[in-house]
Amino acid sequence: MRAALALAARGLGNTWPNPSVGCVIVAKDGQVVGRGWTQPGGRPHAETEALKRAGVRARGATAYVTLEPCCHWGRTPPCTDALAAAGVARVVVALRDPDPRVDGEGFRKLAAAGIAVEEGLLREEAERLTWGFIKRLRHGLPLVTLKLATTLDGRIATAAKESRWITGPAARRAAHGLRARHDAILVGSGTVIDDDPDLTCRLPGGVPVPAPRVVADARLRIPLASKLVRTARDVPTLVCTVPGHAPAALAPLRDAGVEVIEVEAGPGGLAMHTVLAALAAKGITRVLAEGGSGIAASLLREGLVDRLAWFHAPMVIGGDGIPAAYALPLPDLAAAPKFRRVAVRTLGPDLLSEYECEAG
Amino acid sequence: MRAALALAARGLGNTWPNPSVGCVIVAKDGQVVGRGWTQPGGRPHAETEALKRAGVRARGATAYVTLEPCCHWGRTPPCTDALAAAGVARVVVALRDPDPRVDGEGFRKLAAAGIAVEEGLLREEAERLTWGFIKRLRHGLPLVTLKLATTLDGRIATAAKESRWITGPAARRAAHGLRARHDAILVGSGTVIDDDPDLTCRLPGGVPVPAPRVVADARLRIPLASKLVRTARDVPTLVCTVPGHAPAALAPLRDAGVEVIEVEAGPGGLAMHTVLAALAAKGITRVLAEGGSGIAASLLREGLVDRLAWFHAPMVIGGDGIPAAYALPLPDLAAAPKFRRVAVRTLGPDLLSEYECEAG
Repeated sequence: MRAALALAARGLGNTWPNPSVGCVIVAKDGQVVGRGWTQPGGRPHAETEALKRAGVRARGATAYVTLEPCCHWGRTPPCTDALAAAGVARVVVALRDPDPRVDGEGFRKLAAAGIAVEEGLLREEAERLTWGFIKRLRHGLPLVTLKLATTLDGRIATAAKESRWITGPAARRAAHGLRARHDAILVGSGTVIDDDPDLTCRLPGGVPVPAPRVVADARLRIPLASKLVRTARDVPTLVCTVPGHAPAALAPLRDAGVEVIEVEAGPGGLAMHTVLAALAAKGITRVLAEGGSGIAASLLREGLVDRLAWFHAPMVIGGDGIPAAYALPLPDLAAAPKFRRVAVRTLGPDLLSEYECEAG
Repeated sequence: MRAALALAARGLGNTWPNPSVGCVIVAKDGQVVGRGWTQPGGRPHAETEALKRAGVRARGATAYVTLEPCCHWGRTPPCTDALAAAGVARVVVALRDPDPRVDGEGFRKLAAAGIAVEEGLLREEAERLTWGFIKRLRHGLPLVTLKLATTLDGRIATAAKESRWITGPAARRAAHGLRARHDAILVGSGTVIDDDPDLTCRLPGGVPVPAPRVVADARLRIPLASKLVRTARDVPTLVCTVPGHAPAALAPLRDAGVEVIEVEAGPGGLAMHTVLAALAAKGITRVLAEGGSGIAASLLREGLVDRLAWFHAPMVIGGDGIPAAYALPLPDLAAAPKFRRVAVRTLGPDLLSEYECEAG
C-alpha cells in the first residue's frame, strides 16, 4: 500500500477534478505484476493502468488501491467491473471514496463479484493524499497550501519590495515542485504588480497539466502588460474580483483570454472562501497560495489554510520589511492560527518546514 | 580530543574571564586515566583537574587539551609546569592560546621540558568553543548570541505585547540551557517593562555562576519595582545608559545594588559596541542577547551578532505583531545580515535553528 500511495502522489496536481489514486497488483506468488496511477486529466484510472500492465497475471492476484474503486459509469467504465473481469481475487483499499456515487458501493460491487475486500490499510496517509478531493466533496472548497518564502524574521521583501532572491536555488526548485503538485496557483494582484511572476512550473520535463493561475483582485488592478495576462491563452488565467466593475474594464482582460469570475467582497478585498468555492466549482481540489501579505492574511483570518510550506532563508530584513501576512488582527495570542509540523527539510542554506492546520 | 572538547563545553558560561578548556589524559596502554575541565570561576584549570584524577598514571601518558596550556603565573601556577612535573610524555593541543602571555610560549615550555607537542587537532571545533575568549582578546568584545523566540512570521508578541507563551516548554528549557552557556544576559529596557523577566537560568541543579543581567537602557526607564532591580543583590544586575543622567536618577538603582555603566549613545538608543566593550572590560566573553526588537535591530545593524539561536513556533501572528527586530533599515536586499546554518533541532512543536555570522 505504501507503494500505491507513492504512485498516487505522482498524480497530484494533474488529475483534478478526479482524485489521484495509486494501484499495485501483487500476484499470488508475491510478485508485483502491475502498477498504475491516475493519468493526467483524471483518466485512465489507476486500476485500469495497473491491470493493463498485469494482463493475465492479474488472475487470482491482490490489488492494493489507495481509494475505493469506482462503480459508476463516468468518462470511464467502472473499475469494479474491470477488477472483476481481470479475475482479481482480493482488493485492499486504504480509503473509502466519499463521492456519493461510490461511498461503499464500490466495496459492495466487488464483494458481489466474489472478490475479498479489505478497507482501512494506511487510511490516514491516504486521507492526507486525497485531502483536496475529500474537502471539495464535503465542503465545496479545495485544499489550500499557503507557501511563504521569508527571512528568519518573516519578511517577504525589503521596504522597497525587493524580494529576489531571499531563498536560494534549491528552495526555489522545491517551490516549483509544490506548484506541480497543486491544481491551481493563487496570488493577490499586489504580487502581480510588484513581481510580475509567470507562476508556471518550471521543472525539467515540464508538467502534464499546467495549473490555472488565479489572481485575487478586488480592485481590478492587474496590469494588462503583466506576464499572466499576456500568456493567458497558453496557461489558463483567472481573475477573481467583486461584482459591479464596468464592462469596459473587464473587456480587455477577457479579450486577452483571461477568465473573470465575480465573487463576494471581504475585509481584505475579497471573501476568500468565495474565491475558493468558485475554484472548487470548476473542479479544482488543491490550491497553492503564494502570497502576498494580503492573501496570506485573508486566508489565515478566514481559517482557510490547510497546509503551510514555509521557506526560511538565513537572513534578517528587519521591521520595515514587507511582512509575510498583514494584520489578521488577533484579539489575543490564543487566537493565533496554529499548525502542526509534519516535515522539516534543509534546502541549501534555507529551511523548509511544513505544517498542517491543527484541526486538519 | 572530541572528549576534551565535550568536557570544555561543560564549562561554558561559568569560567569567564578565563576560557573553558577540556583535558583528557590517556595512559600508554590507551586507558583514559584523567578528565578535567575548567572549573567555575575559571580555576582550577582543566589540566590540573585531569592530572589530579590521573595521579601517578599520568607518567608517560598523552594529554589532549583543547587550548594551549598556560605557562605564566596567574591565580594558578602554570599548567606547563604541572604537566611536566606529572611526567606527561606528549601533549596534543587543538588551539594555540592567543593570550599574549601564552601564544606559543606554552608549547615552547613543554618542549623544553622534553614533552612531545602536537598542535591543531580539531582546531576549528576548538575555535568555535573558545570564540568568546578569542574575540574578547582580539577585539575587546564578547561573542554575542542573539536568541529569538518568534512565530513563523517572525513576531515576538501580539500587537498588545502578549508573548506568553509563543514557544512551548521544550523550547523554553533549551533557552535556559543557552543562558547557562553564556556569561551574561542582555535585554533592552522595553523587555523589562513589558515582560518583567528575571533572566535567571532555571535548570534542574542550577548553575554554578549566575550570569549577570545587563539592561540596555538609554533613557533609564527600568522600573525600580522590576524583578531585575529587586533581585540585584542576589544576581549581578547592570544597567547601561548614556552619560548625563542626574545623580538623583541613578541613586535608587545603585542603592538597590544595580551597577550603572555609562556608554555611548547610538541610533537605537545606545551604541551597542560600547555596551559590549564595557562588558568585555569586565571579563565577559559570551553574551546572550534576548531582545527585544530594539536590541536585536541595534546588534544586527552594528554587525555585532556572532550567533543566532532562532526558535520558531508553529503559529502566525500577522503584520500588527511586534517584530523580531525593528527596522535596520536596509538600503537593499544585498545588505541584509546573512548567516550560515550550523544546526536545526525540533523541540516539541517548535523548531530551533542556529546560525553563525557569515564572516564568523
